[in-house]
Amino acid sequence: MESNPSTIQEQSPSCLEITMEVHSVVPPPHKSTIQKLKTRLKETLFPDDPFRQFKGQPTKKKWVLAAQYIFPILHWGPNYNLKLFKSDIVSGVTIASLAIPQGISYAKLASLPPNVGLYSSFVPPLVYAVLGSSRDIAVGPVSIASLILGSMLTQQVSPTGDPVLFLQLAFTATFFAGFFQASLGFLRLGFIIDFLSKATLIGFMAGAAIIVSLQQLKSLLGITHFSKKMGFIPVMASVFHNSQEWSWQTILMGFSFLVFLLVARHVSMRRPKLFWVSAAAPLVCVILSTFLVFAFKAQHHGVGVVSLLPLSPSFKLQYPNNRLNPPSWNMLQFHGGHLGLSMKTGLVTGIISLTEGIAVGRTFASLMNYKVDGAKTAASNIVMSITVMVTLLFLMPLFQYTPNVVLGAIIVSAVVGLIDIPAAYHVWKMDKFDFIVMLCAFFGVIFISVQHGLAIAVAVSIFKILMQITRPKTVLLGKIPGTDIYRDLHHYKESVKIPGFLILSIEAPINFANSTYLNERVLRWIEEYEAEDPKMHSNSSLRFVILEMSTVSTIDTSGVSFFKELKRTMEKKGVELVLVNLVGEVMEKLQRSNEAGDFMKPDCLFLTVGEAVATLSATIKGQSSNDV
Amino acid sequence: MESNPSTIQEQSPSCLEITMEVHSVVPPPHKSTIQKLKTRLKETLFPDDPFRQFKGQPTKKKWVLAAQYIFPILHWGPNYNLKLFKSDIVSGVTIASLAIPQGISYAKLASLPPNVGLYSSFVPPLVYAVLGSSRDIAVGPVSIASLILGSMLTQQVSPTGDPVLFLQLAFTATFFAGFFQASLGFLRLGFIIDFLSKATLIGFMAGAAIIVSLQQLKSLLGITHFSKKMGFIPVMASVFHNSQEWSWQTILMGFSFLVFLLVARHVSMRRPKLFWVSAAAPLVCVILSTFLVFAFKAQHHGVGVVSLLPLSPSFKLQYPNNRLNPPSWNMLQFHGGHLGLSMKTGLVTGIISLTEGIAVGRTFASLMNYKVDGAKTAASNIVMSITVMVTLLFLMPLFQYTPNVVLGAIIVSAVVGLIDIPAAYHVWKMDKFDFIVMLCAFFGVIFISVQHGLAIAVAVSIFKILMQITRPKTVLLGKIPGTDIYRDLHHYKESVKIPGFLILSIEAPINFANSTYLNERVLRWIEEYEAEDPKMHSNSSLRFVILEMSTVSTIDTSGVSFFKELKRTMEKKGVELVLVNLVGEVMEKLQRSNEAGDFMKPDCLFLTVGEAVATLSATIKGQSSNDV
Repeated sequence: MESNPSTIQEQSPSCLEITMEVHSVVPPPHKSTIQKLKTRLKETLFPDDPFRQFKGQPTKKKWVLAAQYIFPILHWGPNYNLKLFKSDIVSGVTIASLAIPQGISYAKLASLPPNVGLYSSFVPPLVYAVLGSSRDIAVGPVSIASLILGSMLTQQVSPTGDPVLFLQLAFTATFFAGFFQASLGFLRLGFIIDFLSKATLIGFMAGAAIIVSLQQLKSLLGITHFSKKMGFIPVMASVFHNSQEWSWQTILMGFSFLVFLLVARHVSMRRPKLFWVSAAAPLVCVILSTFLVFAFKAQHHGVGVVSLLPLSPSFKLQYPNNRLNPPSWNMLQFHGGHLGLSMKTGLVTGIISLTEGIAVGRTFASLMNYKVDGAKTAASNIVMSITVMVTLLFLMPLFQYTPNVVLGAIIVSAVVGLIDIPAAYHVWKMDKFDFIVMLCAFFGVIFISVQHGLAIAVAVSIFKILMQITRPKTVLLGKIPGTDIYRDLHHYKESVKIPGFLILSIEAPINFANSTYLNERVLRWIEEYEAEDPKMHSNSSLRFVILEMSTVSTIDTSGVSFFKELKRTMEKKGVELVLVNLVGEVMEKLQRSNEAGDFMKPDCLFLTVGEAVATLSATIKGQSSNDV
Repeated sequence: MESNPSTIQEQSPSCLEITMEVHSVVPPPHKSTIQKLKTRLKETLFPDDPFRQFKGQPTKKKWVLAAQYIFPILHWGPNYNLKLFKSDIVSGVTIASLAIPQGISYAKLASLPPNVGLYSSFVPPLVYAVLGSSRDIAVGPVSIASLILGSMLTQQVSPTGDPVLFLQLAFTATFFAGFFQASLGFLRLGFIIDFLSKATLIGFMAGAAIIVSLQQLKSLLGITHFSKKMGFIPVMASVFHNSQEWSWQTILMGFSFLVFLLVARHVSMRRPKLFWVSAAAPLVCVILSTFLVFAFKAQHHGVGVVSLLPLSPSFKLQYPNNRLNPPSWNMLQFHGGHLGLSMKTGLVTGIISLTEGIAVGRTFASLMNYKVDGAKTAASNIVMSITVMVTLLFLMPLFQYTPNVVLGAIIVSAVVGLIDIPAAYHVWKMDKFDFIVMLCAFFGVIFISVQHGLAIAVAVSIFKILMQITRPKTVLLGKIPGTDIYRDLHHYKESVKIPGFLILSIEAPINFANSTYLNERVLRWIEEYEAEDPKMHSNSSLRFVILEMSTVSTIDTSGVSFFKELKRTMEKKGVELVLVNLVGEVMEKLQRSNEAGDFMKPDCLFLTVGEAVATLSATIKGQSSNDV
């Protein structure tokens, strides 16, 4: 009974009523082009439906919600209390103790004066406290973007030769980076970043971490003549070519602090309760090393130190006694020969820092164990900001004794966490192609350039998607005995073919990129069916090709032509084409294209494969009994 | 009964056995990475499975089939007979009478001597007769590729100033074009042309036809100083700027012949039996106009004529008395400063002529009515070739009196058929976005350049596909009363929601480009479910989210993370995630990623939505009766 499906109905009559009550296929409700376009645009540009909480609210409430939407501080401000304040103090000071050494270090990466780095942990957190929505984020400079900023500008302007121009260009480039990122937000083009796959990000971050670490070899080895390029090969050449410049005092100091920082990091990773060990370690290193240099006058023994404000006298004249700089609007340069450079640098650093931010954000979940606990509201940002301000006002002069080498060690220990080997192994296990994408990003960043590595990885991942679309899977379905369910014959071994029927499932939208292939593929399925057993009983020669279309979510004009052509070819072969479970859009398009009334004939459209097979088997029987 | 699905089983007990006999979900059979890669590569690079007829044949037969595969002449040669020969004579001469005027005209388009144009209808058909497989194709030059070849070379080398170098570059560029096309074939990269959608081709061909026709205004109006550029604007500027050069004799002659040719074409279109009218018309025009010029010595009255072999005396010296040129290997130049130009021109014309060929091929079906009947075997190509050779040997001197204007008219009447307005209207009716792609190709070709127009249209079509992937549809399913079928709630209005269940169908492969969006979208569906009726009975609060996964043909690492994250979020909300009908690959990946054993629990996996709902409803009932 189970191997011959057409007899099921006779043997279980009460089931017959339900199985054979073939449900009529109806066309979808009408929607105008404008309506469709509107829905489509809404899903594309506003995927998070940001205004959904406004729906159905009274006008006054809407205004309140809008104000809270723009200034989230209005949301949490009224409920602020002492307990929250206490935890904000703790977390603010903790973040600041991390941010101060990192700020100085990243400024160093960008060839900028250290106080500029501190400002990035002073002003942005204040803005974020008012406008930001996430409670857990801490805003600051990002390592690889800083490196690229410095590297791109250094190629045309020397940071020591013309420090004011360099600073102006850095400010202008940063402005463009922000402008570019803001534009992405305003134009709701955030979906562009969706094309950065997890694999791309893992490879990119690991490559960037290595590039940044390599640059620290300058500080860690005490080399003075160092490559201006970022790639693996020029940097290594530069390291070994200048091996006579290596300074043992620097190396000793650097690697001691590096080991200390890595151990601290390891401890915090293993015991989340000791998170403060790794949070405090960089500041401890800075204080300790500064004291050591001050005590032993090590700056005269080959240990390079941070030189404060390496600016020209004219610049010092401009801001004579101010330790807190005035706003630097006037430093933005929107004219002159370097505008192109600033814009290009801004665009690249904008993309890269966005990528870095997303990468850190997306891998945040896996870092949960190491998360600084306690940041309850964005007010922690204000605490952090004030701490940094105090540092800027009173402690800045002390930093002139801080050795470069300790900054290098801090940077290396900070970025080393971006190399995520378990994640890479997971990608390898899951998807070999994704692993290749990851390697492209990694080696591209290391050996070609950060931008190109990223671009190559994105191109390869998009290429993979396009290949999937050009060659969609077509699956041969069989009936699972004792049920009305049709599934992949290769997957469900017990499923059986129905003689006279070829049941295929097309697993992709049909469009210009695959309609030619699909046409060939379906015809090959038919050939294979016919070749399989040519001596078969004539009754079981191919009568119907059933296409299960649930998976075809949309078709275009080429897709419509595909069906027309297929139908024509099949008619020549004396085979009928039956479509099952068309989704609304596909049904509508076929209906519109339907000049000869071919596709919408009710006996060619069914809701399930089971219903189609049952009905059509009955037809065959009817015919053959009439013939007799 | 129909609105409350969980009671169906009680009321139709014999059906219960079948419905409730939940079929176990099994993992797919194991396949190694190498096997998967092999299948994938085979489908990508050999979609037509060209060696399928070799399978299971004895070795000797295989050799015969291979020889026939490479030299199709071995296939049809042995069965050749007199009757076939007769029809080949008719069709060969017919095609030759079309090819001779077109060959001369297209040579003119490429600024090449007319006999070079005739060689393209003499040598390639011979090669094709031996190696070609299609019976209906006639090989010859293509209009827009000729124009681009001439235009690109003319920008650096003058065809009149240095005709030998120009000819050498043209030969070299053609060699590279062929080399490029052959490489695409050998490397099985033909799938690249799949990215040319029908809409792109319609727009491209119409634009190209207009560009080619615009160039003919030079001949048709008798202008001597004409723009070297191809765009609409420079050509029109050139036409009206030189209006004093217009020659009324030329205009009269040109438009008379053009009207004659278009009428002949129209007659053949309307009455397919009169196909010979339009096939013979160009040759009639050439003969008639040549005779007119010869009789009235019109070349002295402002009617430009084809000047034979506009080559330097040194070139004539090289081939003194040969009317049939020797092979031109020695004309290929693979060195010198113009190699880059030749390669670039070759690449562009290679792509463009491929595009043109495909466009003509793909729209061939719609031209069936106008098809030259009678070409039975590739031997017709040999007949055509001999006819052209006779022309080259004996009739060439006569062509020196052929007026340029008639060639212009022939070209315009030939390309005007490429403007397919009904097809454009069909695209508009079917898919507005495809129509935009078509306009991009059309206006890009006319106003920017042929290459850029094509590139823009391809980019826009790929962008559309990527957008579809970034924002896949998620559809809310409901039960169709009286059946076990779940379908789109918006499409099938009678379908009903099941309280406590949210049933979604995700209509695309889940990958890096959409996993973020899908996560947000699913959570929004849940929010909407909960917002819909917050005062609902507690029993019907959301318990299960069922994802119907038939449509998810593949996932990548980001897709796997999507499920993990979704599962975690749902657990926090106290909702269970149930997956229905996973396809093999997806199931395998989830299984491999499955560290905590979450997804493969049998009570989270079902074969159909119906089975899932039935089983889970029973669970809820069991729980609540236990609670009581």
